[in-house]
Formats: sequence, C-alpha cells, structure tokens
Amino acid sequence: MNFSSKLLEDAVDAFASLPGVGRKSALRLVLYLLKQDKEKSAIFANALIKSRNEIKECKKCHNLSDDDICTICANPVRNQQMICVVESIRDVMAIEETGQFKGLYHVLGGVISPIDGVGPQDLNISTLFGRLKEMECKEVIMAVSPTIEGETTIYYISKNIGPEIEVSVIARGVSFGGELEYADEVTLGRSIVSRTPYNKVIQD
Amino acid sequence: MNFSSKLLEDAVDAFASLPGVGRKSALRLVLYLLKQDKEKSAIFANALIKSRNEIKECKKCHNLSDDDICTICANPVRNQQMICVVESIRDVMAIEETGQFKGLYHVLGGVISPIDGVGPQDLNISTLFGRLKEMECKEVIMAVSPTIEGETTIYYISKNIGPEIEVSVIARGVSFGGELEYADEVTLGRSIVSRTPYNKVIQD
Repeated sequence: MNFSSKLLEDAVDAFASLPGVGRKSALRLVLYLLKQDKEKSAIFANALIKSRNEIKECKKCHNLSDDDICTICANPVRNQQMICVVESIRDVMAIEETGQFKGLYHVLGGVISPIDGVGPQDLNISTLFGRLKEMECKEVIMAVSPTIEGETTIYYISKNIGPEIEVSVIARGVSFGGELEYADEVTLGRSIVSRTPYNKVIQD
Repeated sequence: MNFSSKLLEDAVDAFASLPGVGRKSALRLVLYLLKQDKEKSAIFANALIKSRNEIKECKKCHNLSDDDICTICANPVRNQQMICVVESIRDVMAIEETGQFKGLYHVLGGVISPIDGVGPQDLNISTLFGRLKEMECKEVIMAVSPTIEGETTIYYISKNIGPEIEVSVIARGVSFGGELEYADEVTLGRSIVSRTPYNKVIQD
C-alpha cells in the first residue's frame, strides 16, 4: 500500500499485526477511528494498555482476573467441592454463559499434545493437583475438547487423582437442534453407547 | 459474555466497537495481545493515539497527511497540470498503487447523493474550484464510482469548470482477465460504444 502519511501507516501496521486482520481491513478500521472523536481512540488505547499491564492470572484457577484471585474463586457462594477443568479462559466464559455450573474452574492453558511438544509440565496441571490436596473437592469435571489430545489429558489427570475424588467427563452426543443424518459417525455411535434412561432425562 | 475481569471486558468492548468486529473476534484479538510482550500493546496504543491526534487533512487536496501539505502535493516532480478527483483517500492509495498517474489528487470525501442528503456543499468541491483558479491545471480526471451518484457528481463538477480545462473520466469497460459472458450488460454495452482504435491501444 502507498501511504501518504507515516502515522497512518503505523496505525494500519498495528492493526494488521493482529491475527486474521489483513491490511485492507486494518486500513478500514483506522479510517473509521480517524472519523470518530479523539476521545474514542484515547479510550481504546487506554483499555489496551491497562488490560495488558494489569490483568493477572488468578493464582488459584489461572483464569484471567483483575485481582490475585478471580471473582469466581473468591465467590463463597460457588460450590467449592467441584472443579471443572478446561483448556482456556474462553471455555470458562462459554460454560459460565450456560448458567449450568456453580462450582470452580481450573484453566489448563491447553491440552497434552506430544506432537506439538506440549507435556503435562507445560500446562497448569501440578497446580490442579495442589489445589485438590488443599481443598475438599469431591468431583473433577473434565470439560476439554473431544480430541485425541483431550482424551490423553483426561487420562493423565484422572490417573493421578486419588479414588476419593470422582472424575467425570462432560456428556458427548448429538447437538440439540442437530439432525441425526448430519452427525458424524463417532459422535452418533457414542451417543448410542452412552444412551441415558429417558426417565432420568425427564427428571433433569 | 461473562467476563471474570473488568479490564478484559473493557478491552473487548473497545475492539467490538469497531465496524465488522464481533465480540467473539474482539475477545480473540485481546487474548492474542495479552499473550504478546507488553511492548506490543504499548506500540499499538501509541500508534492509535498518535494517528488520531496528529494526522491532518492536506490543506490542498484533503488527503490524509502528517503535515499541512501532503507528500503528493508537496512533491515538485508531480505533474501540476493534472488533478485526479476521487471520493476517498482509499481511492488515492489504489491509484497510487498502479503507478500510472503522476499528477495531483483532490479528495471529495464522498459523492453527491440527494437521497442521503449529501449536496455539493457537504463535499470538498468549492476547494477544488479554488485550486483550479490558483493553479495552471489543464485536465481534471474524474475517478469516482460508476454509479448514479458518481455520474451526478461528475456532471455537477464538469458544469462548473470553464472550457479552458479539459474534464475526462476514467475508462469503463470489461476488466482485464474477466470473461465477457460474466460482464454486466451496462458495462459490456458501454465498452462497445466506447471502443478504442486498436492501433491506439498498441501505442499505449
């Protein structure tokens, strides 16, 4: 691109350095901001710097947090006897969105993947075991991706948890609203093997 | 979305306020920046603020500029007798990219569109006439969109330019590499009416 302004070029470069943002989109975004009040750019820049400098990782669950302990871990109303283990903070947000889980979380930061050189020591797994020793946890819910790496991670963690704590896995099956003929074979097969008694479904 | 961090939410809000960026994409961008060096966010924020506070509109052509006069207007090598009239600075960049034009530009900031309530007084048209009076311009090249609004703008401007200055319009026709059967009727029709003698094409 041919820029008549170095400042414009710098701003476009900044946006274009983000994943999934091309230079044409970056230019569109910068031109948009240039048309807005100066205040808007200031607020934007401030939010960017503050978030980068001040957001911490929760010392307990590794969720993102404004304080040392995140709002979920610090909430005494949450069920302290259940820990839901997830890969990323995005999963925490997705599960919170459902409103179906009132326990605590533990963010691994990924899954065990020998091919990518990710071993248990690269993830927040030892801190999970540390938490389990300290608290009166009764159930660990594994909510990781249904992939080979996810299964490996579930296996590794469950193997290292004593029999006094139950390890469960989130249900896999056909999606609500999905049509059976479009479900993949593995999912459909599992959904038949892991079928649920109907009167149990109605109770839930 | 359920945010465990207010700072995270602010940063996501900032990105999500940009056109074409949804909240999920915004979250992805913020999480990406959180993983990068602090310096990267600082550079980003700085580019944003500097561009908004310091980029000016060129006093001559209304192109974006770091100084009062943009690098194109300030360049003595450029042909001072030709002005290419465009709608936006994006068009300036696109034409500069081609390397085919060595004259000056004039950015209108839009086209005349009665339906949208945009009249000649809302565009940088009077400054164009002012420039034409001051300089020894021989040709005004209208490079606006081939739409009804664009045609209206061309008509309005050409009507108000004296006979001593030639007004031309960028060529319209079938695209290079395009297939005739896919060209729309109007474009194809015009390309036949405005056919060019072949030996003139070869000379160019």
